[in-house]
Amino acid sequence: MPEIRKDPVFGRWVIIASERGLRPNEFRAGAQGGHACPFCAGNEELTPPQIYSLPGPAGGWRLRVVRNKYPALEGGGSTENRRTGIYDKMDGMGFHEVVIETPDHGQALEQMSEEAVADVVRTFALRMREIKKDPRIKYVMVFKNHGQNAGASLLHPHSQIIAMPMAPLRVMQEIDGAADYHRERGTCVFCDIVKEEAGFQKRVVGENADFLAVTPYASRFSFETWILPKAHLSHFEDMPDAQAGALAAVLKTTLGKLAVSLPDLSYNLIVHTMPVQEAPAGHYHWHIEIMPKLTHVAGFEWGTGFYINTVSPEDAAETLNAGRRFKL
Amino acid sequence: MPEIRKDPVFGRWVIIASERGLRPNEFRAGAQGGHACPFCAGNEELTPPQIYSLPGPAGGWRLRVVRNKYPALEGGGSTENRRTGIYDKMDGMGFHEVVIETPDHGQALEQMSEEAVADVVRTFALRMREIKKDPRIKYVMVFKNHGQNAGASLLHPHSQIIAMPMAPLRVMQEIDGAADYHRERGTCVFCDIVKEEAGFQKRVVGENADFLAVTPYASRFSFETWILPKAHLSHFEDMPDAQAGALAAVLKTTLGKLAVSLPDLSYNLIVHTMPVQEAPAGHYHWHIEIMPKLTHVAGFEWGTGFYINTVSPEDAAETLNAGRRFKL
Repeated sequence: MPEIRKDPVFGRWVIIASERGLRPNEFRAGAQGGHACPFCAGNEELTPPQIYSLPGPAGGWRLRVVRNKYPALEGGGSTENRRTGIYDKMDGMGFHEVVIETPDHGQALEQMSEEAVADVVRTFALRMREIKKDPRIKYVMVFKNHGQNAGASLLHPHSQIIAMPMAPLRVMQEIDGAADYHRERGTCVFCDIVKEEAGFQKRVVGENADFLAVTPYASRFSFETWILPKAHLSHFEDMPDAQAGALAAVLKTTLGKLAVSLPDLSYNLIVHTMPVQEAPAGHYHWHIEIMPKLTHVAGFEWGTGFYINTVSPEDAAETLNAGRRFKL
Repeated sequence: MPEIRKDPVFGRWVIIASERGLRPNEFRAGAQGGHACPFCAGNEELTPPQIYSLPGPAGGWRLRVVRNKYPALEGGGSTENRRTGIYDKMDGMGFHEVVIETPDHGQALEQMSEEAVADVVRTFALRMREIKKDPRIKYVMVFKNHGQNAGASLLHPHSQIIAMPMAPLRVMQEIDGAADYHRERGTCVFCDIVKEEAGFQKRVVGENADFLAVTPYASRFSFETWILPKAHLSHFEDMPDAQAGALAAVLKTTLGKLAVSLPDLSYNLIVHTMPVQEAPAGHYHWHIEIMPKLTHVAGFEWGTGFYINTVSPEDAAETLNAGRRFKL
C-alpha cells in the first residue's frame, strides 16, 4: 500500500509508492524489445480490469479506461492522518486509471481525428464525474506524459487519471492566487488573460469560438502552451459535452504545431481544475497546461520555483504559427 | 537585457533570457568535440573577467570565480516594476557568477580533497557577503547542476551564483511554512528535523559534530538528500569559517555515497537560505538540498507540486550506507 507523507516545512504531500518502481519502461536503456504492448488491441488480457470503453469497428474498441497496474494510490486504506514524532502520514488511498486513447500503437494525439480526440476529453470528464461520487476523493488530476523526457514509460498513446484524498499544494496555491486577484480586481484572472491575449494576438497559437491556446506571458518553459475555455467555468468535468469537439480541435492544432516546430518533443499535459467536491467558483477557471520538456534544458527550476526561460513566449508563438522548425 | 515577468495567477517571477539560449552545450547531440574547455587551467582568456580566485601551486589557481558569459541576469537596468495590461515586468537586473571549483576538468566534487571542498563552500559564503552589499539584491541563489539530466551544459566541475532583486516564490513559501511551524510550536522546524533524525538514525547518511545529512521524511525525489547544520543559523553566508571543513566533510561523504550507489548520477545541489537583506531569524535554518535526477523518472511532478517517489527515504539511506549499487 503506498503511503502519503507530509513535508513538515512546506505542508506538501508526497506519495511514496515503492511497488511503482517495478513498472516496465520501454525507454529504459537495455529494455527488452519484443514484449507485447499491453495497450494494443488484442492484448486486453495484459491490463488490469477494464473500467470503461468506447466501441470501435468490427466489435473492437476505440478507447479503453483500465486500472493502472502499478498504481500511485489504491482504493483500500483510510484517509485518517497518523503522526510519528514531528511527521504526518496517511494511507495512499485513491484511484489511478489509464486512458488508452487509441488501439493504434503509433498514432499520436495530434494525428488522431478530431472526433477521436473529442472522445478522449469527454472520457476525462465522464470519469471525473463518476470518481467524485466517492466523497473521500478531493482532487482528480488528469494528465498525459508524452515521450521519454516527460517521464512516459510506455509509447502507446495514453493519459492518466489520479484521484486523491487531498488537493496538491500547488493546485491550492494556484486557486489561492486566482482568489487574491478576484478579491483585488473583481474579475477572474483567467477570463482577463483570455481577453488580453485575444486582443494582443502575438501569443495566440490556436483559437475557435470556445477556446484559446496561448504561450503564456510568464512562460516557465520554452514553448509552454495553455489552452483556456473562453467562457468562465471552474470545473473541467462540468464542460458541456457540446464543447468537447471545439476543445479537441484546438488541442489537435496546438499539439500539431508543437510537433512541426519540435519533432519528437516530450511534453506533460495537465488539466488544471477545481477540487471536485467544491462548489462552482467565480474566481477559478479550468484550463490545460502543456509543458514541453526540451532535451538538456535545466531541471533544477522545477524543484525551486526559480525559472529561466531562453525562448520568449512571443518568439515561441511566432515560430509555431510560421510552422518553422526550432533548433535548441 | 533579460526581462523578469510576473505570472498574474501565482505571482511567481520568471526570467526570460533569450541570449542565454546561445550558450554552448557539451552534452547536446551533435555537439562538436575538440573545443577548449573555458574552465580549464591555461584557458583563462576564454572566460569573462575574473572576480575572485584562490592561488594554486606553481603560480596557478585552485579556484576561480568569473562572470557567467551567458547571464540569466545582468548588472545594469532598474528594479522598477512596469505594467502592460494585466501583466507586470521589470528589467532582468542582477548578477550571475560561475565558481570554477578546480582547475582539473575531470575531478568531481566528491573526489576533491576536503580542504578543496571547504574552499568552495567558503567562497560561496564570501561571494554572498560581498554581493549583498548592493541593496538592490534581495536573494542570492547558490546552486550546482551536475550532469546532463540536471541541466548542466559544461562538464568541468562548477557551481553558479545568481543574485536577484526579489526572492523566488518557493523560497518565500518555504520560509512562510517554517514561520507557521514556529508560531504553532515555538521551535524551528529544521532544528526539530535534526533532533528527530539524529534520534531515528534510519534516514541518516552522514554526520559529524556540526552537520547532519539525511534522506528527508517526505522525499520528493528518489535518493533526495538534505545537509543541515546542527546549530541554528538562518543565513548561509554567516556560517563560521571554522565550520567550512565540517560541511565539506559531510558533503564529500554524501556525494561519495551517491556516486557509489548511483554511478553517473545527475543532480542539482541547492543552498536554501534567507533573503540576504533580512535580519537573522529564529524560524528559518539554512540547509543544502541535493535533488538527484535519475534517468527516466517522471518530470511532471516538478511543475505541478504533485510528487510520486518510488524509493522510500529509509530504503535510499540503507542502500547508500551499505554502499550498494542501485538499479532503477
